[in-house]
Amino acid sequence: MFKNFVELETMLIRKKMKMKRLVLVNAHEEASLLSVVELAQRGYIEAILVGNTEEIQAILEKNNIKENYQIIDAKSDQEAAFKAVELVRNDGADILMKGFIQTSDLLKEVVNRETGIRKQAVLSHIALVEIPYLERLFMITDGGMLTYPTYEQKKGIIFNAIKVSTALDIKEPKIALLDAAEHTNPRIPSSQESEWLSKEAWENDVIVEGPISIDIAVSKDIADKKSYPGKIKGDADVLVVPDIISGNILGKVGTLFTDGKMAGIIEGAKVPIVLTSRGSSKEEKENSILLACYIAEGSV
Amino acid sequence: MFKNFVELETMLIRKKMKMKRLVLVNAHEEASLLSVVELAQRGYIEAILVGNTEEIQAILEKNNIKENYQIIDAKSDQEAAFKAVELVRNDGADILMKGFIQTSDLLKEVVNRETGIRKQAVLSHIALVEIPYLERLFMITDGGMLTYPTYEQKKGIIFNAIKVSTALDIKEPKIALLDAAEHTNPRIPSSQESEWLSKEAWENDVIVEGPISIDIAVSKDIADKKSYPGKIKGDADVLVVPDIISGNILGKVGTLFTDGKMAGIIEGAKVPIVLTSRGSSKEEKENSILLACYIAEGSV
Repeated sequence: MFKNFVELETMLIRKKMKMKRLVLVNAHEEASLLSVVELAQRGYIEAILVGNTEEIQAILEKNNIKENYQIIDAKSDQEAAFKAVELVRNDGADILMKGFIQTSDLLKEVVNRETGIRKQAVLSHIALVEIPYLERLFMITDGGMLTYPTYEQKKGIIFNAIKVSTALDIKEPKIALLDAAEHTNPRIPSSQESEWLSKEAWENDVIVEGPISIDIAVSKDIADKKSYPGKIKGDADVLVVPDIISGNILGKVGTLFTDGKMAGIIEGAKVPIVLTSRGSSKEEKENSILLACYIAEGSV
Repeated sequence: MFKNFVELETMLIRKKMKMKRLVLVNAHEEASLLSVVELAQRGYIEAILVGNTEEIQAILEKNNIKENYQIIDAKSDQEAAFKAVELVRNDGADILMKGFIQTSDLLKEVVNRETGIRKQAVLSHIALVEIPYLERLFMITDGGMLTYPTYEQKKGIIFNAIKVSTALDIKEPKIALLDAAEHTNPRIPSSQESEWLSKEAWENDVIVEGPISIDIAVSKDIADKKSYPGKIKGDADVLVVPDIISGNILGKVGTLFTDGKMAGIIEGAKVPIVLTSRGSSKEEKENSILLACYIAEGSV
């Protein structure tokens, strides 16, 4: 796993990644638009801005942005989401990004049976969190989309995390199914599910292990101290949580309790979907676009 | 709230706290015994060691500990727990501490209707976590005991957290009921429960607020950015989680993702019960004893 987002960006450059086409859905939101402009200026993406043309142009003017961007006018949230998804389906766009639109309104068009771009059975949220104290990144899933995933949905969450791990060039990704302890507990149904999930037939070069407590998953010292017999000993790449609340908490502490950084995307559609929250910084949005570029490149 | 554990210890000294009598249950475990000896040597506690006399003496000798400690022999886990609880009930001991014994075996005697020392309807785990990056402590509850608390149990968890806040001299404690977002969501039952809990008749000088996301609870910047209308804006003292998994994760990241410190106790019995995990450092055990001393002093 990468040490930090700077290393991730460096690797993108070394790979000589082809420029990606990013569609910003309802681009008339300053923070999202400026992060897209920044990444376009740095040469990673070609931006297509869907939304209220006048408002988009007003934001660009206000911020003294001289470049010309392709703007596609949309009068409603539904129209913006539809047109953006169409650009992926028919026109080869590589990345979708949520702007000033409700996540549910965007996803409704993504999963539309006739005109949508769903690829996997499950769409799931993946956060990539940089923990400076540990000098490494972790993937955390799902703290942003599925509230209380069923067993089948958990399989989809793990599947999507493996896909992203592969796109990020992680050899033999280690996927930890987090719980309150490293043994099953009849009073904690998710611990039993984690045991079953770990026994599913995953690809050969993937380690899926659980239930496992977070201290064993991220600290080799504690794994040794507890004489943990599994294959993950502090070196987990992916932390899978049993529900959205634990995932949301875990995803956010990286930036709240340290000076860590964060990125967020939705996986499972034909292209990665950049999805950050209202509270996200410009840097978080930029890191999310870089992550999406990496995934889009790896998926080619 | 205190900035760190050093400040908590300094306040104990300033308060001229009376020495507390601590009972270590099954004291024949090196890490726990040495932490108790350390705090006894520093003058905070008088230690009573219950357990296998020979093994206890062997550990003391091996570590060159010359002082005499009161040792009460016990042949079984059940006997050790019973005798320890009796020392609280009949002999005025101030603190119980779990040594080499299963938590459930210790608690069985604590809650015994005839001979136990239960005080409140609910016993709950409270972690005190120091986050150096934020220069402050948070209480986190319950990440160690109640798996999926019912509504009534959540009331008990909050009640116990208020008691400990009062013992820690926190004026107008701010108690955040964490969830994935700051609004209720019909697909997330705990968010509805948090809304009801926040409307219960709590004491006047206590703020109980939820559902609230962790970023609003611990970051004033994000609370402002999201225009959060509540009373907690990054200054929560207590973080209440909906289940043991989210609490366990949140409690541990403080020490895993930063060089933070941690303490853990169970509240709801006549005296605080020091409860740390197998993976806990000696420092964590010592901080937990200091916390228990503070609570025992505040409760007098």
